[in-house]
Amino acid sequence: MSVRVSVVGASGYGGGELVRILTGHPEVEIVHLAADTHAGQPMDALFPNLKTFTGRRTEELDLSVLASDSDVVFLALPNGIAMDLVPPLLEAGAKVIDLGADFRLKKAEVYERWYKIPHRSASYLEEAVYGLPELNRAAVRGARLVANPGCYPTAALIALSPVLRHPAASRQGIVIDAKSGVSGAGRGLSLGTHFSEVNENVKPYNVGVHRHQPEMEQALAEAGAAVSVLFAPHLIPMTRGILATCYVRLQEPLAQEAAVDLYREAYDPEPFVRVLTDSLPETKATYGSNFCDVTVRVDLERGVAVALGALDNLGKGAATQAIQCMNLMFGRPETEGLLQPPLYP
Amino acid sequence: MSVRVSVVGASGYGGGELVRILTGHPEVEIVHLAADTHAGQPMDALFPNLKTFTGRRTEELDLSVLASDSDVVFLALPNGIAMDLVPPLLEAGAKVIDLGADFRLKKAEVYERWYKIPHRSASYLEEAVYGLPELNRAAVRGARLVANPGCYPTAALIALSPVLRHPAASRQGIVIDAKSGVSGAGRGLSLGTHFSEVNENVKPYNVGVHRHQPEMEQALAEAGAAVSVLFAPHLIPMTRGILATCYVRLQEPLAQEAAVDLYREAYDPEPFVRVLTDSLPETKATYGSNFCDVTVRVDLERGVAVALGALDNLGKGAATQAIQCMNLMFGRPETEGLLQPPLYP
Amino acid sequence: MSVRVSVVGASGYGGGELVRILTGHPEVEIVHLAADTHAGQPMDALFPNLKTFTGRRTEELDLSVLASDSDVVFLALPNGIAMDLVPPLLEAGAKVIDLGADFRLKKAEVYERWYKIPHRSASYLEEAVYGLPELNRAAVRGARLVANPGCYPTAALIALSPVLRHPAASRQGIVIDAKSGVSGAGRGLSLGTHFSEVNENVKPYNVGVHRHQPEMEQALAEAGAAVSVLFAPHLIPMTRGILATCYVRLQEPLAQEAAVDLYREAYDPEPFVRVLTDSLPETKATYGSNFCDVTVRVDLERGVAVALGALDNLGKGAATQAIQCMNLMFGRPETEGLLQPPLYP
Amino acid sequence: MSVRVSVVGASGYGGGELVRILTGHPEVEIVHLAADTHAGQPMDALFPNLKTFTGRRTEELDLSVLASDSDVVFLALPNGIAMDLVPPLLEAGAKVIDLGADFRLKKAEVYERWYKIPHRSASYLEEAVYGLPELNRAAVRGARLVANPGCYPTAALIALSPVLRHPAASRQGIVIDAKSGVSGAGRGLSLGTHFSEVNENVKPYNVGVHRHQPEMEQALAEAGAAVSVLFAPHLIPMTRGILATCYVRLQEPLAQEAAVDLYREAYDPEPFVRVLTDSLPETKATYGSNFCDVTVRVDLERGVAVALGALDNLGKGAATQAIQCMNLMFGRPETEGLLQPPLYP
Repeated sequence: MSVRVSVVGASGYGGGELVRILTGHPEVEIVHLAADTHAGQPMDALFPNLKTFTGRRTEELDLSVLASDSDVVFLALPNGIAMDLVPPLLEAGAKVIDLGADFRLKKAEVYERWYKIPHRSASYLEEAVYGLPELNRAAVRGARLVANPGCYPTAALIALSPVLRHPAASRQGIVIDAKSGVSGAGRGLSLGTHFSEVNENVKPYNVGVHRHQPEMEQALAEAGAAVSVLFAPHLIPMTRGILATCYVRLQEPLAQEAAVDLYREAYDPEPFVRVLTDSLPETKATYGSNFCDVTVRVDLERGVAVALGALDNLGKGAATQAIQCMNLMFGRPETEGLLQPPLYP
Repeated sequence: MSVRVSVVGASGYGGGELVRILTGHPEVEIVHLAADTHAGQPMDALFPNLKTFTGRRTEELDLSVLASDSDVVFLALPNGIAMDLVPPLLEAGAKVIDLGADFRLKKAEVYERWYKIPHRSASYLEEAVYGLPELNRAAVRGARLVANPGCYPTAALIALSPVLRHPAASRQGIVIDAKSGVSGAGRGLSLGTHFSEVNENVKPYNVGVHRHQPEMEQALAEAGAAVSVLFAPHLIPMTRGILATCYVRLQEPLAQEAAVDLYREAYDPEPFVRVLTDSLPETKATYGSNFCDVTVRVDLERGVAVALGALDNLGKGAATQAIQCMNLMFGRPETEGLLQPPLYP
Repeated sequence: MSVRVSVVGASGYGGGELVRILTGHPEVEIVHLAADTHAGQPMDALFPNLKTFTGRRTEELDLSVLASDSDVVFLALPNGIAMDLVPPLLEAGAKVIDLGADFRLKKAEVYERWYKIPHRSASYLEEAVYGLPELNRAAVRGARLVANPGCYPTAALIALSPVLRHPAASRQGIVIDAKSGVSGAGRGLSLGTHFSEVNENVKPYNVGVHRHQPEMEQALAEAGAAVSVLFAPHLIPMTRGILATCYVRLQEPLAQEAAVDLYREAYDPEPFVRVLTDSLPETKATYGSNFCDVTVRVDLERGVAVALGALDNLGKGAATQAIQCMNLMFGRPETEGLLQPPLYP
Repeated sequence: MSVRVSVVGASGYGGGELVRILTGHPEVEIVHLAADTHAGQPMDALFPNLKTFTGRRTEELDLSVLASDSDVVFLALPNGIAMDLVPPLLEAGAKVIDLGADFRLKKAEVYERWYKIPHRSASYLEEAVYGLPELNRAAVRGARLVANPGCYPTAALIALSPVLRHPAASRQGIVIDAKSGVSGAGRGLSLGTHFSEVNENVKPYNVGVHRHQPEMEQALAEAGAAVSVLFAPHLIPMTRGILATCYVRLQEPLAQEAAVDLYREAYDPEPFVRVLTDSLPETKATYGSNFCDVTVRVDLERGVAVALGALDNLGKGAATQAIQCMNLMFGRPETEGLLQPPLYP
């Protein structure tokens, strides 16, 4: 029997990508698309690629209708809104996958410090499962509420985890230098997403003060590695893609081969993580998909391991990872609807 | 029973796109990938997106093996090579879909004038079917040899055909101004595809002397409209996509509504042509797909109809159109394996 | 003695480009930079390229101060504002160069039809000089009020004028297909200038209904060629540059050589128009400059002349052309401050 | 009296940028442009931006003519060629500025290990001056042979030097994560510079094994900081620009303000280094210029200083820095011919 699915925030990039993939999922029925500011518009006017794939219009948000008609509701909203929608949806019996940040951090005060928003649903933070199946599969399966990871943390955590589990890796002074396409900033308008400002430019921002930094530290701590991470994101002139280049000091020698073996062991069973041995990850190889490509390079002389992860920020970094979680939560095959090859070139 | 498929020229963009789509086609078995200059390399080293989708290596071309193992062979080669491969493949019983130009023009002397290559298989020109299903479906179904249309002609012919069938349309002085992404020039190296030369640039080329001009004129003549076409292609800084903006003089009035109706009638039954009524075609809406978006705008005061068509030059302009033809040739549903929504943004 | 110059609208792209060039002009003193919405900000915070070139801050608009301190005021504003600033500035003795559209069209009713704004200073339309020196040099020299041409009209008029003066050229059914970078849409925010919507996309817009169409028709009529023009602009993924590809029917034969000679005669004396004979114009060759590159290609068999013009929409299409006019208005050498070579690649 | 200048390698991007700037230099006379593979072509056919700026043709290399006609010869050549040209040019009395790597490393064996080319002019390595005026001004003034720094080292050295002079900075484990535009790879053809491979992609390469790594270590050692540097370059989809993000461990606290003061002290007297205090460097702000924008951000909690430097790889990273050196070598004002503001946007 199909999973009945609704999307709130269907007019944004996360919402559009969810619908693009969900229309091709063999066991999903889309029941509602909510988008307050564009309510009533045909979805294929908001996303012209979807013409012939959906005749559906976006609707105003009606929580009780949503909850009664849906098995699961995806929330793809600006931060601070989902926290008010999650309690009524859960209480009415729907499951929720939140693509935003409201339920990612376990402590309300950390959320409030970084997001400058009081948390009005702090009692649900404990229950929320951080939806990174590669670290957290069992919990996702049993979850009622999934907090889908941020795009940067997804790339960095998949890239870093295997080497950080090794005792040679120092847990201090980790640096994550990430390069992101512009769609990660959403479909909202700002000078920072204006074509003429972004094109022919590379721009660091929020160095050491980005909100994904505490999310990474928390997730690594939960995975057993209490670390301190310096995160430096950069905006580069492309639409989709994140590359995380992560620098880890080695406190004892670790051979290149042994380092790669850590990745093979961790990810050979994983359907969506591809370990590269003869090349380095590049974002284009993951374009439009749920794949994350990773590898590691050890510089023994300098005592540094460089872990690299590439993905599509709207795919594995957002919408397709959310669908991967949905598959787990509803007992579907984990890869269902997600196995189209990435686009190249 | 699956169709056994081989691809010759698998290391180029046309070949890579064929394999990308064919790996997801439920009734296709890929049997050989030939690529002389890269023979022996893993396909996923040439196309890193394909990792986990194929473990196959490219092989040197062996026509007798190809012919005996394959129901159909796709040729994605520089012009002038296919003409030597087609006769032995056909005689050995395989069908052939040629993505190049060798069998598109019906007259050897026209081919020779435009391509500066003597045609060594002219006796097969008569048999070759021009593989544009929207104009030529029945013939494609029965074909042994399909000449897949050029990327520019596909966009222009789909855009122009409906209005040209109307008596208001003059058949003289038609102008096709096309804008193309760079992947249309192939994966070969030239200063004209160097990133630094293409980026932040728009460049007309071969104005009035491009090889696709006689192809368009021939196809329109076969479709009943003997016309003269001036074709002006432009290279713009993007990877995928072609937009053809076609200007047709009106020798008598034609109302906007009536003009759009011509498109609706022609294309409402077509699974891969989408007629836009409230917006204009843009290439991004067709990204990575077999769709062609079209519409027409009439300027009654100036007596001009502007027909517009947008597609992905590697999709409907090349590889996916070839697979659409394959589906027809083998009695498969025409849309099989081809209904993923385009990527956006 | 230096020309005292002020810029109103200094925070937009037109304003920024004016200041960039004016800081290097040997006989200009910048006295005021006005930018209401960003008043009080350092100019080099709005335009980080200008750091060390100007310590000036933007100010709120004060017309009487502007007029008394300035020999000339450049207006780089959204349409509909300049019409209220021009009368007081002129009456107070300053000259004005308006980069917007308010004073380009000679008839208030035409302006009102296309811009949907009542014209509140219609009595100044007669006096305003259309600031295209190549067509209008003498008038510019004597002008008190210059209406700087639109970016598209500049490219199209320079490309079309020579061939249109020849009797072989039909004045009916002229088509101008233009491709523009995104900075032409200004620094304001809209979904249409969002990087993710523009990148990897080509998008026609306002086909046959763009406001620059009547401007072109008027300017060609003034230059002696009463024509009807169909204008089809396209947005392509680059920041700077316009290419106008113009199609003119030939009512009698015109040899290629003779056609090019028309351009040589017209433009050999011009410092900023370069006639190409062995290649076609491309926008990159004009990047950041006041140059317009042009040529013509005749297709005798089809009876069409293709006139092509390329320029930088912020340079010759806006700011540097305005400075060229300023030089003429103040008896300075026409090329003063404008002879830096374009950037390439 | 003008400096008589020749350029060898005029058909490449470094050569083209040299000529672009030198044509605007008030005290330079260009006497020869050599370009073996394109000898005899008009320079403005190789670089269409230069039309009307030079009527000169490229010539075959003739060392004796070059040496006798030139005060200084710029070499912009693939590595391994300059080493044969420098001795005869110097012995004939010309000065040489080499934009390549042949004379940057002080030890022939280091050069040979990294460049895989035997050094045939090792006796000149001692004399060669590393042409980074901000570190090395006095030596450049007196030089006969200048080795112009690599593009990456220029950005990294200017960014790192001030903080590395402070005792709080650890000299071990420095990481330089750099993002570069494609023109840095030159005008030669390779799959890695093909538009379709680069666009919508970010690609790390040569992590820990790039040839600029020993150059950086040597230059820092000469400047008093014997350090070990891990260098990770990334190719991003833009034409011009390098951003170096450099991570330095702090072995004792260093306040943000104190850190920025180090940069102000070092660079306030420098005409081409701009220290940002309220924003982070972005490459667009330096487009087409000789500027390098820098700043530093300290994360006290994590004990890391992040030093950032942005420049144009063809400008301060190559051609304009070479001209800055020329000005010093010939007693000209250091900024002569180099003070055009960068282009934006």
